[in-house]
Amino acid sequence: MSAGWVAPGAEAIEAIVAAARFDATGLIAAIAQAADGEREVLMLAWMNEAALRETLATGRVCYYSRSRQALWRKGETSGQRQQLRSLRLDCDGDAVLMAVEQTGVACHTGRVSCFYREAGSTGLLDATAPLVSPETLYGR
Amino acid sequence: MSAGWVAPGAEAIEAIVAAARFDATGLIAAIAQAADGEREVLMLAWMNEAALRETLATGRVCYYSRSRQALWRKGETSGQRQQLRSLRLDCDGDAVLMAVEQTGVACHTGRVSCFYREAGSTGLLDATAPLVSPETLYGR
Repeated sequence: MSAGWVAPGAEAIEAIVAAARFDATGLIAAIAQAADGEREVLMLAWMNEAALRETLATGRVCYYSRSRQALWRKGETSGQRQQLRSLRLDCDGDAVLMAVEQTGVACHTGRVSCFYREAGSTGLLDATAPLVSPETLYGR
Repeated sequence: MSAGWVAPGAEAIEAIVAAARFDATGLIAAIAQAADGEREVLMLAWMNEAALRETLATGRVCYYSRSRQALWRKGETSGQRQQLRSLRLDCDGDAVLMAVEQTGVACHTGRVSCFYREAGSTGLLDATAPLVSPETLYGR
């Protein structure tokens, strides 16, 4: 897997972080989209300022886990890392869109994307099946 | 533009809405992705329960405007509507992903996508240019 990310310098990172509008709890929504293939939207998670800064500096996507209240370096436990290819802010600065190279699958259920429960005529149906078992991912 | 959406029945809509996990302020993040072409991520906005219900029932995407504190039927003022093609919830139910047919452009700046400010070596740079002027969109 190519590195695919040239980290901005310290000043540029400050400018980017300064343009991000974090909410009252200090978080910003971050979308990961596959850089290739179907350009599938893989997941939505959250970043605090430290997570955004680390992601920009290292090119390895780092979120903030609201449940664990800690930085969440994607793939740290499961190996299913995300390598940053590009990062954009939206017009009002309160959301981040990343193009990523996903190692393996993004979802803890073993699916490529976390968005697999599709609204249909009878309610929600699983639109995709797991590629790997969660037991394999997390060694349980 | 094809309708492209068969509204679930009342019971199914209740089941879908019940599976959505709204946050403490009653909102859920909703991503709109172009159904065709580059499958570009167009925007991230918010829905309350009423907005999600209306979107599912009508197939016309309706958000909740946090600034106006009111339902925001996308395109009501600008004509730049979003016709729903599919709607998915993520694994933990706190985000919505929609495939939409976008009439015109999604961004109030006149760009196809709201995500146009790209992080680079010198900070943020506009990655795309407006296709139409905001004055044309909003008649100002």
